[in-house]
Amino acid sequence: MNRAAIEQAAHLAAGRPHFIRRTPLWRLPGSALGVRCAEVWLKLEHLQTSGSFKARGMLHRLLSHPIPAAGVIVASGGNAGIATAAAARELGVPCEVFVPTVCSPAKQARLRELGAQVVVTGAVYAEALAACLARQAETGALLTHAYDQPEVVAGAGTIGREIEDQGGGAPGSVLVSVGGGGLVAGIAAWFEDRSRVVALEPELAPTLFRARQGGEPVDVAVSGVAADSLGARRIGAIAWDVTQRWVPQALLLPDAAIREAQLWLWRQMKLAVEPAAALGLAALHTGVYVPEADECVCLVVCGANVDPGSLA
Amino acid sequence: MNRAAIEQAAHLAAGRPHFIRRTPLWRLPGSALGVRCAEVWLKLEHLQTSGSFKARGMLHRLLSHPIPAAGVIVASGGNAGIATAAAARELGVPCEVFVPTVCSPAKQARLRELGAQVVVTGAVYAEALAACLARQAETGALLTHAYDQPEVVAGAGTIGREIEDQGGGAPGSVLVSVGGGGLVAGIAAWFEDRSRVVALEPELAPTLFRARQGGEPVDVAVSGVAADSLGARRIGAIAWDVTQRWVPQALLLPDAAIREAQLWLWRQMKLAVEPAAALGLAALHTGVYVPEADECVCLVVCGANVDPGSLA
Repeated sequence: MNRAAIEQAAHLAAGRPHFIRRTPLWRLPGSALGVRCAEVWLKLEHLQTSGSFKARGMLHRLLSHPIPAAGVIVASGGNAGIATAAAARELGVPCEVFVPTVCSPAKQARLRELGAQVVVTGAVYAEALAACLARQAETGALLTHAYDQPEVVAGAGTIGREIEDQGGGAPGSVLVSVGGGGLVAGIAAWFEDRSRVVALEPELAPTLFRARQGGEPVDVAVSGVAADSLGARRIGAIAWDVTQRWVPQALLLPDAAIREAQLWLWRQMKLAVEPAAALGLAALHTGVYVPEADECVCLVVCGANVDPGSLA
Repeated sequence: MNRAAIEQAAHLAAGRPHFIRRTPLWRLPGSALGVRCAEVWLKLEHLQTSGSFKARGMLHRLLSHPIPAAGVIVASGGNAGIATAAAARELGVPCEVFVPTVCSPAKQARLRELGAQVVVTGAVYAEALAACLARQAETGALLTHAYDQPEVVAGAGTIGREIEDQGGGAPGSVLVSVGGGGLVAGIAAWFEDRSRVVALEPELAPTLFRARQGGEPVDVAVSGVAADSLGARRIGAIAWDVTQRWVPQALLLPDAAIREAQLWLWRQMKLAVEPAAALGLAALHTGVYVPEADECVCLVVCGANVDPGSLA
């Protein structure tokens, strides 16, 4: 994973500007967000097509391979499934999405709206994934993975490239939420040592934190307010490799602080985002991450797949 | 009302960048919003402090006058009241807000959170206003008006200046929602004939449309989905003057189209906005306004004071 791969992803995305949006970079004085630092940059990637950054990676995956007649297949009722379905529709290819029975009717409806064939099977995610992999072996459809495929990580990395372009340079630091680690890997691979990329995880979904404790990726129990989008069981192999090299800090945040930051973003900033998108502000407001007085801190606001009623 | 007044307002606001935010201008290909034109520019002014563009005008009003010991006074439970309370808190001066008994407890609580003294009186707005004016005569507090004061209009005009700066030039057209007309007057006074500024009103709150029919400002009945923020009874005198000169078109939109565009902005763009902020997209999606193929159309997304549950 390197800058050349990310440049290639950006080049492919540039051909579809109606689909992959150049999301705003909102530069504010730190004091506008109650933070003692020079500037906070909010990369409003929750405004991306499909409501999360994942559309970048999924489109890149699909554009990087010949797509079989069977189309595309994925196991995910969350942001990765939605993004895969949206990318498949953009390219006019069929898409099958496997979800467990716990997947809400609202999410299933959203996937169907995007033209996906939704297969509801298994009580838990692992069972839906097993059925998805069996089906893929049968049909030969192109499989997308939520975070651990090189094209997916490179797609996420285009966010780093865009931040640097829009900001007129690399920020002092970039705070990134971590589930399976595709986003942080892409962004860290872009900035290398030119920004301090900081990994943030919920205490209740600490895939990178525990991998560092154990010296290698391990399965962890996941739960809590952000589990819907940061609930990967294990840090991805690509993310493990890239973060070992370029991400010095992996910090944990309690659910209460994440939820408070999510509500603050709505009430004070009118940004309607999912909990996973609030970890950066939570880290600043709690002092889990303390920037220098002259630092420009970039927060990657990564998703908005939230029931808006939960913000009232 | 002219560009010099707007420049002055921008100069004063620039001294308080933690309060008056430079909101993002999001440039997208028209096709990203399902519109046949070169580009749609979304000026995300709903992200402004206080959740609407009105903070610009209210701060400017307060900075343009010596503030008496009695502080500031306003009659409004809506965006103008919230923005006045926020500006008063920013300057550390007292603020009284008069609202009728129909003002929801949630809005009253929001005003109190901002440090305002809330006076609930009268069954309808006109009665709250009468009580506010009587109180103002007694205390000598500085009165703010939702749209018909020169400082308020000039403050709104800074949005036009910012759009031009961020876009690297004036867009072909700017679509602006009209209630009392403060926003459209400020923006039209900025662009003069360098952009086509188009006024948009709900069919159920047609202050400018009816004034044009009658040849002068007249009282109109107001109702409908956007009445909360576009429910002025009569176009302001300043707005009447400026729009006669610089705004050739005043177009009407049905409530159903406004509501549909509001939901589209949430579902497809993840922008959580109030109905008043959706008139521009409604005009494009319904064909009430049809841009040229090579046109760049700017939509002023003006407010987000919405119950998020209403977007579900």
